[in-house]
Amino acid sequence: MAYADLRINGDRLNSTLQSTCSSWGAIVNSTGMRRLTLTQEDKEARDWLVQSCKELGCDVKIDQMGNIFATRRGTLKDAKPIAMGSHMDTQPAGGRYDGILGVQAALEVLRTLHENKIETRHPIALIDWTNEEGARFPGAMMCSGVWSTKSATGLQECYKITDSDGINMQQALQDIGYLGTTPCDYRENGLESYFELHIEQGPKLEIAQKKVGVVTAVQGMKWFAVRVSGVEGHSGTTPMDVRSDALVTASRLITAVSETAGSTKLGVATVGVISNDTQSQATIPSGVEFIIDVRCSTDQMVTDLHTAIFHRFDEIIASEGNATRYEVVRTWGLPESIFHNDCIAAVRAAAVEEVGEAMVMDMKSGAGHDAAWTSKVVKSSMIFVPSKDGVSHNPAEYTSPEDCALGTQVLLQAVLKYDAGIIA
Amino acid sequence: MAYADLRINGDRLNSTLQSTCSSWGAIVNSTGMRRLTLTQEDKEARDWLVQSCKELGCDVKIDQMGNIFATRRGTLKDAKPIAMGSHMDTQPAGGRYDGILGVQAALEVLRTLHENKIETRHPIALIDWTNEEGARFPGAMMCSGVWSTKSATGLQECYKITDSDGINMQQALQDIGYLGTTPCDYRENGLESYFELHIEQGPKLEIAQKKVGVVTAVQGMKWFAVRVSGVEGHSGTTPMDVRSDALVTASRLITAVSETAGSTKLGVATVGVISNDTQSQATIPSGVEFIIDVRCSTDQMVTDLHTAIFHRFDEIIASEGNATRYEVVRTWGLPESIFHNDCIAAVRAAAVEEVGEAMVMDMKSGAGHDAAWTSKVVKSSMIFVPSKDGVSHNPAEYTSPEDCALGTQVLLQAVLKYDAGIIA
Repeated sequence: MAYADLRINGDRLNSTLQSTCSSWGAIVNSTGMRRLTLTQEDKEARDWLVQSCKELGCDVKIDQMGNIFATRRGTLKDAKPIAMGSHMDTQPAGGRYDGILGVQAALEVLRTLHENKIETRHPIALIDWTNEEGARFPGAMMCSGVWSTKSATGLQECYKITDSDGINMQQALQDIGYLGTTPCDYRENGLESYFELHIEQGPKLEIAQKKVGVVTAVQGMKWFAVRVSGVEGHSGTTPMDVRSDALVTASRLITAVSETAGSTKLGVATVGVISNDTQSQATIPSGVEFIIDVRCSTDQMVTDLHTAIFHRFDEIIASEGNATRYEVVRTWGLPESIFHNDCIAAVRAAAVEEVGEAMVMDMKSGAGHDAAWTSKVVKSSMIFVPSKDGVSHNPAEYTSPEDCALGTQVLLQAVLKYDAGIIA
Repeated sequence: MAYADLRINGDRLNSTLQSTCSSWGAIVNSTGMRRLTLTQEDKEARDWLVQSCKELGCDVKIDQMGNIFATRRGTLKDAKPIAMGSHMDTQPAGGRYDGILGVQAALEVLRTLHENKIETRHPIALIDWTNEEGARFPGAMMCSGVWSTKSATGLQECYKITDSDGINMQQALQDIGYLGTTPCDYRENGLESYFELHIEQGPKLEIAQKKVGVVTAVQGMKWFAVRVSGVEGHSGTTPMDVRSDALVTASRLITAVSETAGSTKLGVATVGVISNDTQSQATIPSGVEFIIDVRCSTDQMVTDLHTAIFHRFDEIIASEGNATRYEVVRTWGLPESIFHNDCIAAVRAAAVEEVGEAMVMDMKSGAGHDAAWTSKVVKSSMIFVPSKDGVSHNPAEYTSPEDCALGTQVLLQAVLKYDAGIIA
C-alpha cells in the first residue's frame, strides 16, 4: 500500500472518543464534560490510554509532570520521535472535543499504522499533556510549558501550586499514580517535531465555510492574579462613606478590564476567576482576588493592553478615596508562537490532498495550546477543524464526526509526509 | 443580702470568656475567632456550656434547631422564664465578643444567683441561639427566627439549607448531637421576657463617651440573593463585542448597590458573598451569584432603598446590550423591631444605678440580633457595651474586661428588677 492511500478508521475514532467521554467525566444529561486534571476521572482515562498504546506495542513513559509519552518504534537509528498529541483534561463545564480529540486522533493514527504494519523512519509518539486547561491548578498549558523549559514556571514551582481544596500538584500526581520519573525536559526527552489536531474553538472556519485550518501561529497571552485589599467591617453598623469595601473596588476594576479591552481594540481581556476572603453576607469584604487573562496577536499588543488596564486601575484606586488598594500577586504568560514552516507545509499538503485547496485556510490560533510551548523548542504546527457556532469551554461544544475523522486523516498524512521528508 | 447589692464576678466572667475562646475556634496568633455554627468547635463550646449549666442545677433543653435553653427554677408556680442569651457562633474571621459575651454573661449571672442562693420569682433561663451569624448556613438570626415563628423561613425550610460543602442544617445538627426534640416554637417553649447583652459593633458609645447603651429598637433589614446569567465561552477566541459576561455585568451591579446606598442616604447596602459558576481563567463566566444586605432605620426605608437598587439594575441590564440578565432567587428579612418598655425600663434603671445617668444613652441597633426576633413574641430589650473603634466581624474586635463586667452586672440587675416587678 502506498502510504498516501493509508486511511484512518473514522468510525473507530468517533466511537472510541464518545465512549471514553461517557465513561470518564461526562456531565449527566448532556454531552458536557468535567474531567479536571489528575482527578479520578482523569486517572481512569489515562489508564485506558496507556493500556491502549501498550496493546499496539508502544513504549510508554510518564514524566515528572505526569505527561504521557507513548512511542512506536521507527527504522532510523537514534532518531527522535515525531509526536502527535494534545490533552485529555477539560474545563469544569467543557465539551468532548477540546484537547480530547487531539489525543484520540493520535491514538487512531497509531492504530492505523499498527494494523497496516507501517514502518516509519522516525519513531511516532502520542503525547497526553497534563493540566492544559489550568482549571484545577491555575496556569494553563502548564506541563508542556515545563517540558519546553521556556515557561517561567518551573517544575518545583508547579509542584507547589494548589487546587481550591489545598491539594498541591505533586500530591495530586502521586495520588493517581502519575508522578513519573522521566525528566520533564525536552533536552532529555526530546522530539523531532510535534503535530496537534484541535478544534478551532472559534467561528472562523465555519464563517469562511472551510474544512481545515492550517495554523501558522498562536497569539500571545498573559495572566495576572490581582489582589484587592480593603477593611473588613460589619455590614449593618459601618456607614457607607467610611467603608473600604474590597469587593466594590474589585467590581470597578473588573468592569475596567472589559472596558479597556473593548475601547483599545488591542485584543481580549477576561476575568474568569474571582474569590472573596470572607464570604459572609454581614461582613464588608476585606480581600478579593481575581485573575485577568489578556490575549493579543502580538506580544507587544499584550503589553500595551495590560499596561492600559493597570493604568486605569491606578486611576480607579486614586478616585476611590478610601483604603482599598490592589497588587498583582502572580503572573504567567505564553509568548506569541510562530509555527515551523516544515510542519506547516506538511499539514497544508495533507489537508489540500484530502479536501482540495478551496476548503483549506491558514489561520492564527486565538486560544493557547500545548503546541505553542513545543514550538519554542521543536518544529511544531497544528491542524484546526470547525467548532459549531465557535462555541468551546461549554457543554454545547461540538465538532461533527466527519470533521473529527477528517482532521485525524490530515494528522496521519502530515506525520507521514514529515517522516518521509517529502515536504522539507 | 439585698438583691440590689448583688454583684457578678468580673474576673470569673472574663477568664471564662477568654479561656473558652482560646479552646474552641481561636484563630492562631490573634484574638480572632472562627467558630462557625454546628462545627466541631461549636459542639465543644456547647458541650462545655451545657455541662456548666447543669453544675448549677439548671434544667437543659435542646430544641429542634439546636437552640440551648438552660433554666434555673423560680418560686412562682407555672411562671415562664425570664431569659438571657445570645449566640456562640462567629463569622469566619470574627472576634471574641460578638454574641459570645451575651452567653458568657448569662452564665455568669446564673453562677452569681447560684452561689448566693438567690431565689427569684420567675425561672431564669440562659439561651444559646443557633446560627445567629448565618455565616455557614445563609440566613442570619436563623434559629431565633424559627423560634419566634415570625420569620418567613420555617423549620423544615431551614433544615434543607446547605453550607458550601453541601451539608444541610439538619445533618449538621445531627452530626454534632444537637438535633433536639423540644419544639422550636415560642408557643410551646415560651418565655416571660428576654434580655440580651451585646457589644455595640459600631462606634456611637465610644464617640459619645458613654458606657452603656439602652437599646430601644433594631433597624429593619433585608437580604437578596441575586443571580446574573450570561453566556459561557472561550476567553481567547470570543471577541469583546459579542460577549455576555456574567461577571462583568455582576461587577456593574455590585458597584451600583454601593453607589445607590451612598447617594440615596437611606441606609446601608453591602455585597458580602459572591460566587462564580465556572471559576476558570480561560472561560467567560456564565453565572454569578451574590447576596445583597440592605439595612435602614425603618422598614419603609428598606423598601425604598432596595427598590432604588433594582431600578438601577434594570437600567444597567438594559444598557449592557447583550444577553446578560439578573433574577432575585431568594430573599430573607428581619422587620424593624421596637423593644418593650418594661424591658427597656429595667435595663435603663439597672444601668443608671451602676454608672449614673450621664454614662448611659438610648440607642437603636444597626446590627441584627436574636432579640429582634424574640421581641416579636415576648417582651425584649438589649444592653450594649462599647466596641473599640466600632470594629466587629473582625479579629480586631475588642471590648475591655471592665466593660464586659459592667454589661454583665447591668444584665443581672435588669433581670432582678424585672423579676421583682419593680419597673413595670
